[in-house]
Amino acid sequence: MAGSVLSPGSNGAIGAAAGELLARLFPICRSITGEGVRETLAILREHAPWRIEEYRTGTRVYDWTVPREWVVRDAWIADATGRRIIDFRRNNLHLVGYSIPVRARMTFQELRPHLHSLPAMPDAVPYRTSYYAESWGFCLSERQLATLDPHGVYEVVIDSELKDGALTVADCVLPGVSGREFLISTYCCHPSMANDNLSGLIVSTLLLRELARRPRLRHTWRFVMLPETIGAISYLAHHEPEMRNVAGGFVVATCGGPGRFGVKESFLVNHLIDRAVSIAFRDAGIEPLRYAFAPNGSDERQYSAPAFRIPVTTISKDKYYEYDFYHTSLDDLDFVTGHALADSLALYSAAIDVIEENRVLRSCNPHGEPQLGRRGLYPQIGGALHQSPAGDNRPCVENEVDLISWIMFLADGKHDLVDMAERSAGRFADIVAVARKLEQHELLEEVAKDAAESPLAAS
Amino acid sequence: MAGSVLSPGSNGAIGAAAGELLARLFPICRSITGEGVRETLAILREHAPWRIEEYRTGTRVYDWTVPREWVVRDAWIADATGRRIIDFRRNNLHLVGYSIPVRARMTFQELRPHLHSLPAMPDAVPYRTSYYAESWGFCLSERQLATLDPHGVYEVVIDSELKDGALTVADCVLPGVSGREFLISTYCCHPSMANDNLSGLIVSTLLLRELARRPRLRHTWRFVMLPETIGAISYLAHHEPEMRNVAGGFVVATCGGPGRFGVKESFLVNHLIDRAVSIAFRDAGIEPLRYAFAPNGSDERQYSAPAFRIPVTTISKDKYYEYDFYHTSLDDLDFVTGHALADSLALYSAAIDVIEENRVLRSCNPHGEPQLGRRGLYPQIGGALHQSPAGDNRPCVENEVDLISWIMFLADGKHDLVDMAERSAGRFADIVAVARKLEQHELLEEVAKDAAESPLAAS
Amino acid sequence: MAGSVLSPGSNGAIGAAAGELLARLFPICRSITGEGVRETLAILREHAPWRIEEYRTGTRVYDWTVPREWVVRDAWIADATGRRIIDFRRNNLHLVGYSIPVRARMTFQELRPHLHSLPAMPDAVPYRTSYYAESWGFCLSERQLATLDPHGVYEVVIDSELKDGALTVADCVLPGVSGREFLISTYCCHPSMANDNLSGLIVSTLLLRELARRPRLRHTWRFVMLPETIGAISYLAHHEPEMRNVAGGFVVATCGGPGRFGVKESFLVNHLIDRAVSIAFRDAGIEPLRYAFAPNGSDERQYSAPAFRIPVTTISKDKYYEYDFYHTSLDDLDFVTGHALADSLALYSAAIDVIEENRVLRSCNPHGEPQLGRRGLYPQIGGALHQSPAGDNRPCVENEVDLISWIMFLADGKHDLVDMAERSAGRFADIVAVARKLEQHELLEEVAKDAAESPLAAS
Repeated sequence: MAGSVLSPGSNGAIGAAAGELLARLFPICRSITGEGVRETLAILREHAPWRIEEYRTGTRVYDWTVPREWVVRDAWIADATGRRIIDFRRNNLHLVGYSIPVRARMTFQELRPHLHSLPAMPDAVPYRTSYYAESWGFCLSERQLATLDPHGVYEVVIDSELKDGALTVADCVLPGVSGREFLISTYCCHPSMANDNLSGLIVSTLLLRELARRPRLRHTWRFVMLPETIGAISYLAHHEPEMRNVAGGFVVATCGGPGRFGVKESFLVNHLIDRAVSIAFRDAGIEPLRYAFAPNGSDERQYSAPAFRIPVTTISKDKYYEYDFYHTSLDDLDFVTGHALADSLALYSAAIDVIEENRVLRSCNPHGEPQLGRRGLYPQIGGALHQSPAGDNRPCVENEVDLISWIMFLADGKHDLVDMAERSAGRFADIVAVARKLEQHELLEEVAKDAAESPLAAS
Repeated sequence: MAGSVLSPGSNGAIGAAAGELLARLFPICRSITGEGVRETLAILREHAPWRIEEYRTGTRVYDWTVPREWVVRDAWIADATGRRIIDFRRNNLHLVGYSIPVRARMTFQELRPHLHSLPAMPDAVPYRTSYYAESWGFCLSERQLATLDPHGVYEVVIDSELKDGALTVADCVLPGVSGREFLISTYCCHPSMANDNLSGLIVSTLLLRELARRPRLRHTWRFVMLPETIGAISYLAHHEPEMRNVAGGFVVATCGGPGRFGVKESFLVNHLIDRAVSIAFRDAGIEPLRYAFAPNGSDERQYSAPAFRIPVTTISKDKYYEYDFYHTSLDDLDFVTGHALADSLALYSAAIDVIEENRVLRSCNPHGEPQLGRRGLYPQIGGALHQSPAGDNRPCVENEVDLISWIMFLADGKHDLVDMAERSAGRFADIVAVARKLEQHELLEEVAKDAAESPLAAS
Repeated sequence: MAGSVLSPGSNGAIGAAAGELLARLFPICRSITGEGVRETLAILREHAPWRIEEYRTGTRVYDWTVPREWVVRDAWIADATGRRIIDFRRNNLHLVGYSIPVRARMTFQELRPHLHSLPAMPDAVPYRTSYYAESWGFCLSERQLATLDPHGVYEVVIDSELKDGALTVADCVLPGVSGREFLISTYCCHPSMANDNLSGLIVSTLLLRELARRPRLRHTWRFVMLPETIGAISYLAHHEPEMRNVAGGFVVATCGGPGRFGVKESFLVNHLIDRAVSIAFRDAGIEPLRYAFAPNGSDERQYSAPAFRIPVTTISKDKYYEYDFYHTSLDDLDFVTGHALADSLALYSAAIDVIEENRVLRSCNPHGEPQLGRRGLYPQIGGALHQSPAGDNRPCVENEVDLISWIMFLADGKHDLVDMAERSAGRFADIVAVARKLEQHELLEEVAKDAAESPLAAS
């Protein structure tokens, strides 16, 4: 992308803040539990009002049980000379997540089944975990693996502990007035990888900061930040009534890469959430990659499950599964930039604006067009043509009069501003502004709260 | 188009009548009120039973007020020698519609803001109006403008008057038996331009003449002819209960040019009105340009407004907005021919026939195919194949037996003849004829009036 | 097609059985009534439990009457020397079906109107009938016709008889437990032509044999074999209550040619029947030709008629109407092979399996994903990527975990296994197997019988 979708100044400041957070958070060893998560959240709370919640080891959460907390102090493989050839302190990806304690000497043959590398990417250290099967292992690059002596003997130390403790999550509920609630979720359980998922942590936090500063919100926005899978399931189990009430949401993930924007659609395909994202991209002049819904991915697996059926979309920039460096040590601070995060933030923010500004309006003058002229809304001299610049037959929305026509035409109490933006092809911000002007002229009125539940899907 | 869609003879006679009307009506100076409209309607009443209705100046009609009546006797700009260089009597487009009286000498600099021309079309005089803002002006060609002396002094005279009077409309309601009503509307407020909209006046009048001569109509057809916008709004305000009952309609406009046929779809896209027009074009072997619905255009703005929601389509031949000469003096008797009007008339007429002939039929033999052989409806020797001439896999409707199969298959009381024409790909006239034959053989019966409200949109 | 869709061994055995039946049935002279049909059914009853039913001449069946039975012993045309130049005993297609008795000498001019040939296919004898108009005729190749002497005198003998008797049909109802019934119908009235319709007789019979051997059927399967048109109408008239209860079905016809597979869709286009056939082809890796529904063809004319509206599809291999040899003597044992019949049988069988195995399941763990790891259903080491082999963005169903995700996601009691196979793109057999495993793990339960009426059309 040539430039930023935000104004350069704004993007610059936000990009810088995002870049600074990236650098601070990158080295921390996060997992689904433990001090790394707590440390990460503490840093993010400097920027936004995250609230911490912990669930104790052993708590039953639907089909799952909150696991023991993982403590890791050090881990290495040393050769016969005592030299640490693989060292957790150099890169926390070297240790398989949730590895149990080990302290042993062993031959290469004994060690080999515990080593993970990527033959096709010889410089990359893969990311691997073993949360629920007691196991241990090391990840290393194919090049490192090649330097090991097949006849050597190695000292293996994992100074870790699995102990009763807690699983840590964070949330923040920004109350709105409509009684309708939306969700913004990201996960905080990945160690030193920048796109997956420092990008989500940072964009979510900056979004929360932005929304928390707004004087008034139409809808309630629930932000959650939690370990993937077990964290989301634990949160759902502890907030089931509220979560059953959520109308839609976003899972913020892998949105900081150098590649094209992407959108993973919700399982409803054409829900308000999907439409808001499409309008945000359209109005930004960006055509994203489109990913069909699938029940893999991230915590849409939980939120969209039968008992909740929350439609969730993801705006990504180098989507998980799709980029070469996914789940490797190459997903680093060279790959992700604050600038890219600021661009993703702008698009999430624009989609949220669509949802926030969306309303159902009804014409006070439903019997034909209003007399715009006496309200100063019509050119004084009639008869001239507004030629479509494209020279084609598509509806031409070139001026305010065209937008007024579309808005007044659709304002029957059954269409909302999103419908109007879609059918007129007008920019959503313009639709909002023109609608507001028409309200001031008493040509439109908002449909009363009780009836304001606009259809969430396109008619 | 190589030939006429009507039989040459019929087209010839109608084309000649249309051409004669064009020549008589062209010079008259029409506006949204005044003697030009009355004179135009008087001529058209020679051909069809138009009924006149007038609304007095000052009458409130929804958001609007019926304006004062505009009288214009003469208008010119003369140079220092007294020579009329711009003269309303030469072309009534020279005067901005609803110009207030003026009698003054002024410099070119004072005059210039009141002059309208089209730099991109140097020979054309544009059409401009100022109905609701008290103002005046002259329209002239770019070439004429270039001859004016920037240092000259000009005499400007507009011998006009804005006085209490009335707004004149015409209608005619041809009653049918079904209790369902359709609308055919055109506007009569444009001065000397042939396609926009003498074409509408003439085609509507000839359609009215044609339908008025029919011994029996299934549906009620309401014809209206009125000044655009204010006329339609005034008419709706005075006929609201009837107009709320209208099922669909046509706005007849700009249908006399030399270009391709076009269809502007209704806001419902797939209403019976749209389908009837599509069948008319398909059966005539013509593929028209397709224009998406937009709430600009003509009086669909009023008829399709929330309080009425009448779906309206327009068949055009050189559609407003789209042809180069739109709203200029080049939209003249060289551009529009009686032959083209006769072709448009034929297509409107065919679409009306589809609506008129459409019925819901029910099979009297719903348990399988009827024995066509004993009724003389089947070839005596079986086994031969009716090969699709196209050699493809589409349903091949080559003979009466195929049409009978489709009609009997769909005749479950839920499908109408339009459904049958669409699904079978058979010509509508053939469907009607075969259905009638099957009724004579007591294989079909019409669904009773109460149940006859066939769905207006495709299932 | 390079190979068989069945395993080679199985196809081999079934192909051999089918080939043997082809050879035995080919010479028999079938018509809509008579001994040829009885003889054919007797042979087929050796293989499957067909039940015979007869309707007496003169019985009223809806719009029709069961005709007299046709007996034909011999028929020929001899030249002046007494040499039989056209002989029914050489090929029963030579005689127009239902020809009345004739014994006469006549000139070529008198004979000519009774002769049918195909100028465009000079070696083919066409198939012609005259069931309901008393008539007679001979069919011969264009080459044979050319050898006749225009000035010759011919002896014409048709030793036939139209007598009171019966129309013979066969059926077999295999009861299932669901209360839902499906139909498999073919026709048995064509004389010596292999694709039209020995193929249907043989594939239906082998399908019936296969289903009759199953220890348990979910649904009731009604097999019928009857003369086209009059047979189906007679059967419907005698089994109206049961037939009104049929949910969908197949008309088995022309499925033994050397050409591409084809599918004629049902009138509902997207009924369970259509979807099952599409899945069967998709899972076999075959892209068939698609034929839109039309109310011609075979007995879908009766079954889908308004009073029954049974959606019916046909899997064909060289579909009627479409292949050059249709309704000629070239549709013979060189054109149709047992191997091709076995392939068609496999596809019908696969589609039936989809219908039989389809169920509505409900998640016992609807609040998010289940913990697969502790059930041994998840790889022990997490983090690795299952890369889509195609490298595109389509949902990648590469392993059991993906299928589990789709199944658990859709298992809300509103989706069936067909939905799951369509949305996941997983093979139906895999979906069935994985669902069964999830039931064993008590992660899924079948929705109770009363609620088990899954929607028949795609949502």
